[in-house]
Amino acid sequence: MPKYHDELDAVLRALADPTRRAVVERLASSPAVVSELAAPFSMALPSLLQHLRILEDAGVVTSEKHGRVRTVSLRPGALDVLHLWLGEQRTPAERQADRLGVHLTRTTPKD
Amino acid sequence: MPKYHDELDAVLRALADPTRRAVVERLASSPAVVSELAAPFSMALPSLLQHLRILEDAGVVTSEKHGRVRTVSLRPGALDVLHLWLGEQRTPAERQADRLGVHLTRTTPKD
Repeated sequence: MPKYHDELDAVLRALADPTRRAVVERLASSPAVVSELAAPFSMALPSLLQHLRILEDAGVVTSEKHGRVRTVSLRPGALDVLHLWLGEQRTPAERQADRLGVHLTRTTPKD
Repeated sequence: MPKYHDELDAVLRALADPTRRAVVERLASSPAVVSELAAPFSMALPSLLQHLRILEDAGVVTSEKHGRVRTVSLRPGALDVLHLWLGEQRTPAERQADRLGVHLTRTTPKD
């Protein structure tokens, strides 16, 4: 599956940077305009825009420009490819524990 | 939580490389000796050892030497930090879908 691997590669490269992860963490609660995203970082705007471009090229965020204001959002399902890959890397012992977890969720009374 | 962030940073940097991900994928099924891990790659052994060292420094794998043979294993729970971080980045809409999923798992009969 080359498409899946390319997507995974782009997402992991995008997330392997603390500034880009901080942007993702901020956007998980709500979309934000670029100036808001820039505020917590002591970083020149062009550097932040470069980080945003890497996140957008990896499909992690999307952005829309209205007049002079660009709003950035986390793309729904953007990190699913990484979730999927992580699930595949469970060791046999971890898979057994996962099955036990599902069983307990199913059989434990709600209250 | 600097420890959590350092650990996450090391894990993501380790996984942001296709050779290192291929090693993790191989180890998810069972531990392997270094020569086995090297076999699928047309790569000089020192380069592979360098990749293994990055994975081990990040806590993703562990290794043990018996005589001249080094066996490498996926560290149980090694990727939990990334799972945890991914869970925190769910958007409000995704969280709502997650809750629905748990509800359905609880209320759907097993057969």
